[in-house]
Amino acid sequence: MEEQVCYRPIGIVHSPYKEPHGVPFQPSFGRGVEGTVEVFPEYADGLANLDGFSHITLICHFHRSVGYRLRVTTPHRTGLRGVFATRAPHRPNPIGVSTVRLLGVDGNIVHIADLDIIDGTPLLDIKPYVPVFIEPDKLNNGWLEGE
Amino acid sequence: MEEQVCYRPIGIVHSPYKEPHGVPFQPSFGRGVEGTVEVFPEYADGLANLDGFSHITLICHFHRSVGYRLRVTTPHRTGLRGVFATRAPHRPNPIGVSTVRLLGVDGNIVHIADLDIIDGTPLLDIKPYVPVFIEPDKLNNGWLEGE
Repeated sequence: MEEQVCYRPIGIVHSPYKEPHGVPFQPSFGRGVEGTVEVFPEYADGLANLDGFSHITLICHFHRSVGYRLRVTTPHRTGLRGVFATRAPHRPNPIGVSTVRLLGVDGNIVHIADLDIIDGTPLLDIKPYVPVFIEPDKLNNGWLEGE
Repeated sequence: MEEQVCYRPIGIVHSPYKEPHGVPFQPSFGRGVEGTVEVFPEYADGLANLDGFSHITLICHFHRSVGYRLRVTTPHRTGLRGVFATRAPHRPNPIGVSTVRLLGVDGNIVHIADLDIIDGTPLLDIKPYVPVFIEPDKLNNGWLEGE
């Protein structure tokens, strides 16, 4: 088991959200908000074929996150919850996973919409969004239950 | 911009897949396959409330990945594609994002099914799986187009 793993950002997210306050809690709450992902030129060739997808998943480093607790409060909810049952940015490893709408790719610049990411966030990876096929009657969202 | 970001694994994935060969390309192809996530005891308290979810997303470090290319071939497909338009494990930052079925939480052990993860994979984070709501007519899967 590695003691630690280290990554180098492959780019940076440019967003109208300059501060954590006001960033939506989910990408789906940020509908219409547009931004760009600047992929560093040395990685731009890896963006080929991405434009066939309507949505992409951005893996980011929550660079404004400092420290964490294992039980956290979340917006619109009472009581403490285990941090791994939330999307709180303050986590043992502050990694964000966010699926956004892809507007287009222009060289090393990726135009995106419906984002929930703060300006200047370091980007670690991009993956195509391919829906997970789960039969609706087998899907439980723990946020909607047992308040 | 950070030069590099470093994380410490919070756990390890135990899986019947001992080698990369034979691991399904998507979790949905691994239906029925069961495994466990061993969360290191110091993080176990963060698992509270996770059992309200039917599915969870595991963020892992592809520890067997060495090196990368920006254009890659993928299974069942001809030609080279940009690595960011694929889920290939060999990527600039070898981070895996996999949504699996949650069977139950027993202390620091998380029982999962439908996995596509190799045995011994270091775990960086767990998030609840909350579906992304995308209107079907606005969704494009670039893997299914323009071979």
